[in-house]
Amino acid sequence: MSLKLIEKHRSFGGEQCKYSHYSEVLHCDMTFSIYLPSNKEMKKIPLIWWLSGLTCTDDNFSQKSGFQRLAEKYQVAVIIPDTSPRGENVADDEAWDLGQGAGFYLNATQDPWAKHYNMYTYIVDELTAIASTLVPHFSGAESIMGHSMGGHGALVIGMKNTARFKAISAFSPISSPSQVPWGIKAFSTYLGEDKASWKEWDASELVKEACLPPILITQGTQDDFYPKQLDETYFLKNAQENNGVVNYNKVEGYDHSYFFIATFLEEHFAFHMEYLR
Amino acid sequence: MSLKLIEKHRSFGGEQCKYSHYSEVLHCDMTFSIYLPSNKEMKKIPLIWWLSGLTCTDDNFSQKSGFQRLAEKYQVAVIIPDTSPRGENVADDEAWDLGQGAGFYLNATQDPWAKHYNMYTYIVDELTAIASTLVPHFSGAESIMGHSMGGHGALVIGMKNTARFKAISAFSPISSPSQVPWGIKAFSTYLGEDKASWKEWDASELVKEACLPPILITQGTQDDFYPKQLDETYFLKNAQENNGVVNYNKVEGYDHSYFFIATFLEEHFAFHMEYLR
Repeated sequence: MSLKLIEKHRSFGGEQCKYSHYSEVLHCDMTFSIYLPSNKEMKKIPLIWWLSGLTCTDDNFSQKSGFQRLAEKYQVAVIIPDTSPRGENVADDEAWDLGQGAGFYLNATQDPWAKHYNMYTYIVDELTAIASTLVPHFSGAESIMGHSMGGHGALVIGMKNTARFKAISAFSPISSPSQVPWGIKAFSTYLGEDKASWKEWDASELVKEACLPPILITQGTQDDFYPKQLDETYFLKNAQENNGVVNYNKVEGYDHSYFFIATFLEEHFAFHMEYLR
Repeated sequence: MSLKLIEKHRSFGGEQCKYSHYSEVLHCDMTFSIYLPSNKEMKKIPLIWWLSGLTCTDDNFSQKSGFQRLAEKYQVAVIIPDTSPRGENVADDEAWDLGQGAGFYLNATQDPWAKHYNMYTYIVDELTAIASTLVPHFSGAESIMGHSMGGHGALVIGMKNTARFKAISAFSPISSPSQVPWGIKAFSTYLGEDKASWKEWDASELVKEACLPPILITQGTQDDFYPKQLDETYFLKNAQENNGVVNYNKVEGYDHSYFFIATFLEEHFAFHMEYLR
């Protein structure tokens, strides 16, 4: 694995870095960003994963959320993967909600997607191994958060790896992908028409399981994609069996943008830190 | 004057808005952004002007600095102009440091620039009149800050209007434009070769005047443009006559990016608020 540092900026006392590398899982070059807090006291520090939404790269959260202030305040490392495999040889679609920029954090089974679209394994295996080499004094404690398609990703990856992720949170997540246009389009393309195969990638199915980590969700009432793509009713109904696992908050007047994420990010970091310490 | 609201986002309890309008001073359509804090107590609130650097629009500071958290915390409105006149009929240059995106906050005297490149008058007259209609409960107190070319703009506009701006601050400003490549290129183009005409647009000349507002400057030591474009020695030498007016801080390891600005922005807001209340 050859890792290339392509950007480094001091930020709030820590370091905001961007790397590129060849991914064996995705069969293409990938970039990701990672923030390391100053850790002046050389203590063990935890790691938060951030998964971005449709059309995003690692830059959106890095540049628009202001998260570095919080990562330094709480002394936690943060890693931000890209949202799909990339490149000329990687299958793509003209639509902005399919193909490159729209990996949906799953392992595709259908051609021509299956060769490259394995974002789930990329994150939980390949990038995890890389992250462990980049975080000095890593405590081993991890949690995961994300936005929209990345909110779906955080819920799914977090709930499929309950022993690993201590907390999950999401901003305006696609929490019932099998029920909404974005999810149906992506799942039928990447996974095929057999809906049984969709269940393991659908947060509203996974949330029925026992022993889940605590989950926080924030949804703006003025979000243009709510409720059409982001309907929470099916997810919350299925979550009822796991009493108290899901904290679902609607916030008045907020939309789908990073202005919304930046506003409530401190609340999410504080929530994660309760379980990461 | 017809003003069109083109974006509105709730952010940290307040409102981040973007407007377009036809500028009589610049003879073209312009956009700007403004943040209004929640002002739940309906108190009188002050206004901070932010001037951006080369190649920027109002979006860079709006999206990358995280200023809204501070504007809400301190209950201050913030207005962010674009960095030059814009449009197909507006003179331009192939270089990124001249023409559109590089107005240098002055009034040009040379053809073909003089018709449109009057950012100084646009800001201190036309946009000021607009701002006063957009800030409810405006206290009348104003201050000005900026970055790089916008740091030059903040210093010049602030020092040319000492009765109006209560404080001035700048991140990595072009504080001696007549001495550095960016400034020499812009001034000789917009103002002509007679260097006497440059003095009224050069912060290192204006800083010799008496009765200046307090000035804070922050400069990163790892800034790729420092000291070539951002040399402070001439400015500080001339400022010595005004003892104590300039607080100049170098910060170790920081570069020219918004990661740097975001880190030190709270310090700048706190500085301004001392004089705006």
